[in-house]
Amino acid sequence: MPTSLVLERKGDLSLRDIPLDLAVGPDDVRIAVHTVGICGSDVHYYTHGKIGPFVVTAPMVLGHEAAGTVVEVGAGVRHLKVGDRVCMEPGIPNPASRAAKMGIYNVDSEVTFWATPPVHGCLTPHVVHPAAYTYKLPDHVTFAEGAMVEPFAIGMQAALRARIQPGDVGMVLGAGPIGMMTALAALAGGCAKVLVADLAQPKLDIIGAYPGIETVNIRRVPAAEAIAAATAGWGADVVFECSGAAPAVLGLPQLARPGGAVVLVGMPVDPVLMDIVGLQARELRLETVFRYANVYDRAIALIAAGKVDLKPLISATVPFANSIAAFDRAAEGRESDVKIQIEMPKA
Amino acid sequence: MPTSLVLERKGDLSLRDIPLDLAVGPDDVRIAVHTVGICGSDVHYYTHGKIGPFVVTAPMVLGHEAAGTVVEVGAGVRHLKVGDRVCMEPGIPNPASRAAKMGIYNVDSEVTFWATPPVHGCLTPHVVHPAAYTYKLPDHVTFAEGAMVEPFAIGMQAALRARIQPGDVGMVLGAGPIGMMTALAALAGGCAKVLVADLAQPKLDIIGAYPGIETVNIRRVPAAEAIAAATAGWGADVVFECSGAAPAVLGLPQLARPGGAVVLVGMPVDPVLMDIVGLQARELRLETVFRYANVYDRAIALIAAGKVDLKPLISATVPFANSIAAFDRAAEGRESDVKIQIEMPKA
Amino acid sequence: MPTSLVLERKGDLSLRDIPLDLAVGPDDVRIAVHTVGICGSDVHYYTHGKIGPFVVTAPMVLGHEAAGTVVEVGAGVRHLKVGDRVCMEPGIPNPASRAAKMGIYNVDSEVTFWATPPVHGCLTPHVVHPAAYTYKLPDHVTFAEGAMVEPFAIGMQAALRARIQPGDVGMVLGAGPIGMMTALAALAGGCAKVLVADLAQPKLDIIGAYPGIETVNIRRVPAAEAIAAATAGWGADVVFECSGAAPAVLGLPQLARPGGAVVLVGMPVDPVLMDIVGLQARELRLETVFRYANVYDRAIALIAAGKVDLKPLISATVPFANSIAAFDRAAEGRESDVKIQIEMPKA
Amino acid sequence: MPTSLVLERKGDLSLRDIPLDLAVGPDDVRIAVHTVGICGSDVHYYTHGKIGPFVVTAPMVLGHEAAGTVVEVGAGVRHLKVGDRVCMEPGIPNPASRAAKMGIYNVDSEVTFWATPPVHGCLTPHVVHPAAYTYKLPDHVTFAEGAMVEPFAIGMQAALRARIQPGDVGMVLGAGPIGMMTALAALAGGCAKVLVADLAQPKLDIIGAYPGIETVNIRRVPAAEAIAAATAGWGADVVFECSGAAPAVLGLPQLARPGGAVVLVGMPVDPVLMDIVGLQARELRLETVFRYANVYDRAIALIAAGKVDLKPLISATVPFANSIAAFDRAAEGRESDVKIQIEMPKA
Repeated sequence: MPTSLVLERKGDLSLRDIPLDLAVGPDDVRIAVHTVGICGSDVHYYTHGKIGPFVVTAPMVLGHEAAGTVVEVGAGVRHLKVGDRVCMEPGIPNPASRAAKMGIYNVDSEVTFWATPPVHGCLTPHVVHPAAYTYKLPDHVTFAEGAMVEPFAIGMQAALRARIQPGDVGMVLGAGPIGMMTALAALAGGCAKVLVADLAQPKLDIIGAYPGIETVNIRRVPAAEAIAAATAGWGADVVFECSGAAPAVLGLPQLARPGGAVVLVGMPVDPVLMDIVGLQARELRLETVFRYANVYDRAIALIAAGKVDLKPLISATVPFANSIAAFDRAAEGRESDVKIQIEMPKA
Repeated sequence: MPTSLVLERKGDLSLRDIPLDLAVGPDDVRIAVHTVGICGSDVHYYTHGKIGPFVVTAPMVLGHEAAGTVVEVGAGVRHLKVGDRVCMEPGIPNPASRAAKMGIYNVDSEVTFWATPPVHGCLTPHVVHPAAYTYKLPDHVTFAEGAMVEPFAIGMQAALRARIQPGDVGMVLGAGPIGMMTALAALAGGCAKVLVADLAQPKLDIIGAYPGIETVNIRRVPAAEAIAAATAGWGADVVFECSGAAPAVLGLPQLARPGGAVVLVGMPVDPVLMDIVGLQARELRLETVFRYANVYDRAIALIAAGKVDLKPLISATVPFANSIAAFDRAAEGRESDVKIQIEMPKA
Repeated sequence: MPTSLVLERKGDLSLRDIPLDLAVGPDDVRIAVHTVGICGSDVHYYTHGKIGPFVVTAPMVLGHEAAGTVVEVGAGVRHLKVGDRVCMEPGIPNPASRAAKMGIYNVDSEVTFWATPPVHGCLTPHVVHPAAYTYKLPDHVTFAEGAMVEPFAIGMQAALRARIQPGDVGMVLGAGPIGMMTALAALAGGCAKVLVADLAQPKLDIIGAYPGIETVNIRRVPAAEAIAAATAGWGADVVFECSGAAPAVLGLPQLARPGGAVVLVGMPVDPVLMDIVGLQARELRLETVFRYANVYDRAIALIAAGKVDLKPLISATVPFANSIAAFDRAAEGRESDVKIQIEMPKA
Repeated sequence: MPTSLVLERKGDLSLRDIPLDLAVGPDDVRIAVHTVGICGSDVHYYTHGKIGPFVVTAPMVLGHEAAGTVVEVGAGVRHLKVGDRVCMEPGIPNPASRAAKMGIYNVDSEVTFWATPPVHGCLTPHVVHPAAYTYKLPDHVTFAEGAMVEPFAIGMQAALRARIQPGDVGMVLGAGPIGMMTALAALAGGCAKVLVADLAQPKLDIIGAYPGIETVNIRRVPAAEAIAAATAGWGADVVFECSGAAPAVLGLPQLARPGGAVVLVGMPVDPVLMDIVGLQARELRLETVFRYANVYDRAIALIAAGKVDLKPLISATVPFANSIAAFDRAAEGRESDVKIQIEMPKA
């Protein structure tokens, strides 16, 4: 039994052996995990012991952003072979469900998802995964980039739901990791430019270093004023709300152009006030995002083509032996940290 | 100068002469008004003197739901001739505006709209109107039906924005006139059936008389329970929020199926709480509606084909001489009244 | 071993025992077949021994349009129980395929389909089928209607791909069974009216008996002339090409309005000439149809709601013992026959 | 009367005075023309005297790809002022037409278009144009780039109609000027990469110099083989047919992925064979393109943002005095020439 990073209970992490089912079914592959990113949800389980209805009631391996190498393939697997470098989609639906049949498997109520109680995550040397949700990385895409595909997939889902049209002007509220991912997906996805608004200048400095991104520090300039200036008063074609902040949600109608779109990515814990009449006055369309479906291929394609460079968003790479310290750092929420990744020991 | 129904100020209506510009430009037609429906907004100007930023500061002719007969055509008009029976779209955009060029002329900020201060309405014997916003009625469509096209157009806009797919199950919250119009548009527009929910049984009785409509009195059965029962727990494909009631808005995530749509038609005066995380968990799409654009032709086509019968929604027809009394009745808000229409005197 | 209708080889049908695999897996149901419709493809295999690349090289049970009663359920099946009356979707994809994950399982290259070599069909007393592709019929929907869902699903797919907007004017070229199904799906799916054009008056008489359908005998009136007359020269919003006839395909640009849509349902055996510049001049969108995906639920909903009545299209109901004669009649291609159904013997 | 480039008749160009209406209406601007690109259609009128139904029967000024400086504004113009550097959309619809109201003004049958008989073009010192179809150039966008917006707009229209999703793989057939514009629009519009196929290596060398573009010389590698290799056999998400060549059109089904899209941009003079069953087998969507609508803003935004660099496609810049020679060179159709531009004399 190999060593895994186990959340024993709220606030209590340990590196220890834990029994995991590693039987490889005919449609599965077994993967030696190489790199795992730490996500805000991992940290939230660590610090709060739960997210919404999902409560940690038994020890659970954390981690769901992973890349590694295929070391065993099931009898029915055709598109992968031993030695392939891959990344994995952490949510597995029931393929016979009504939602999965429709292609929206992300909203299948039966999805199991790594590191969402009671399902173990991937901060462990080996994982077994359905081949259909395991994606080959091109040779020049690194494991570190492969482990970034999961968070980037959320930005991709937001960009897809937005139905960006070539040359759109985008606006992102909130420069956290997901806001940054969304901005880059929107830019690669056809926006001429994307304004990113936040209060924290260190975050804006990181994302503002990308060509095509303009930053707005809303301590100095209101978001509505910034987008009006950038669009001769017309408004953004697409606004991505990634802050989850109530004032941001309330102010959405001032940001989008007539007939524009708003994508709600950020997750306010409680219901928040929305200005429905304001949204109606411009007849805005609102989209919501829940994880992602059918985006890994296209996310990898953009990274492989060099249209999206996620490497600058990797703030630190930590060996597995230090992963508890890495979680503690992530829990600090430093404004200059975007993504901390953990590298598993060589086999 | 002919007699018009003039709102002198809040609470003060009179039938009197008022000077109106009746010059017919090259692209205009002049219409002898036959029938005018009373809309909730007309009543609101009467009882409150304003709607949002629009304030009655000078005497204004009311009315914007009209049908009549063309009596004069401008030199450049080709698709209409004297004697044509027509109905009119009350909002006129600037055709050179960015929104109008995109086909979303309803959200052009320069739209002028009948009976929206300071623009006079159509409760007057003759109106001059751009031919491009004047629509011929087929022979067997009555003036009364023609004057119903305007409110029905809002339901049509809601149905269009919903992007109904054939065989969808729809749900409408709120059985006011717009809720009824929306339910009928959704049904004609491809829904297999539509559930309509309200507190007021008389309203439900009226709309429930249509085949394909099922009613839900939410005093007895919660809307979420009703739609779950009707769809084996899956949810409505499309939910139309036509009540503008805060609890209805908050409860929207419980009504729609995973990947479904919500159309916000009702206009809550103030911002209301929305459960964004609930909407995201099913990855719902939300659409908003502002009046309508490019729907008159298709509204008339559905009425003419007999796929939508609006006549049962005409609760009373009143001669113009009694129009102030008609407004007073409309202001009462009787639950059994859907639409009160006024007939202009014969020329 | 029960008696099945077996196509021994081109032109040679027999009623005889044939070994079939009836093992019920955990996600399967076993169904006692009640009614099976004869499809043109069944007849084509009978008369030609092949369709495109699919060649009958071994005896094969025919039939893929079926309804029946569940008599056994697998351990994992939850939405069906013994005694449920059901109809079945004859094509089963690989749920792990890229297309199936996207919700377009109809274009999964690994689909197996009843009565498509080498897969046996359903003209046999019992079939075993995945529960996920087996659909419960409401109590008041008959087995005969249930067996019509499959051909109607093609019309539904055409209507879905068309993206009909409420109040559209539709036009269908070709009044064969699929043309009729498409016309009814388009009408129920939101069209104000649908013109159906064909050369054969008996077919037009059948479909023309439905309210909302107008027929065009193109021996007397060209289709382009008819649609121009019906739309004041504007054209159809959506044209469904269901004839597969080369002249019909070539003339498509004359039928649709500027910015309208054409759905290619009919299958010309060989490449046909298309007037690309004509299609471009109106900037038409063309959709193609391959079977169907995710339409059974909505097809059943429309039938159950009474918005589509397929019973008048059942031209004859024949006992299983006479099924070879029924195939011979179907092979005649009588203009007054739409659908011939076979009823299986009571168990 | 200033000197213009006049097509006297087929094959006969002259630089001479010709009377033009330069009255500035209230919604118009007058523009001093700076740069005009030569389009294939200009050349075609020169060499053939007609395009389809449009025949040159009287002397006509050529040119429709123009940028310049506003020198006079009508009384009602607000978004432009004297001195603004602008480019102009050459087609002007009737804003009251049914198509224009729907936002698809490009397919309005009443459009007038520069240098399309009998309308004069812009190879003349001053033009008067509706302000609504005149677009301000950002300071750092040159006149030369401004005059490229028109041909790029066709590529943009193709990219819009394609409904590209972020990370799509695109394929363009035909590396003429429009094929190149389409490839760049598709790449900026969200494609991860775009394969461009042609027979002419000089053309492929020009477009292949852009990052993200891969070229396919179909003399050496069939297009179907190239796209299969690039997508592990899956096919292109979007195929743009820009060659107008019959074999390319016939082979389209082999290029697109199941459920993918084909955009027909190239204009074959005569009807061509299409493999409808092949298109159906993958249930492809086909879009057609006719000029463009509502794309100038977004085209300029992409150029201004540096996401599209059109300058490498300007093969030569010729003074107006030499414009007849420039047309003769354009008529040669050199494989290394993409766009030749003419600069008007300083006022």
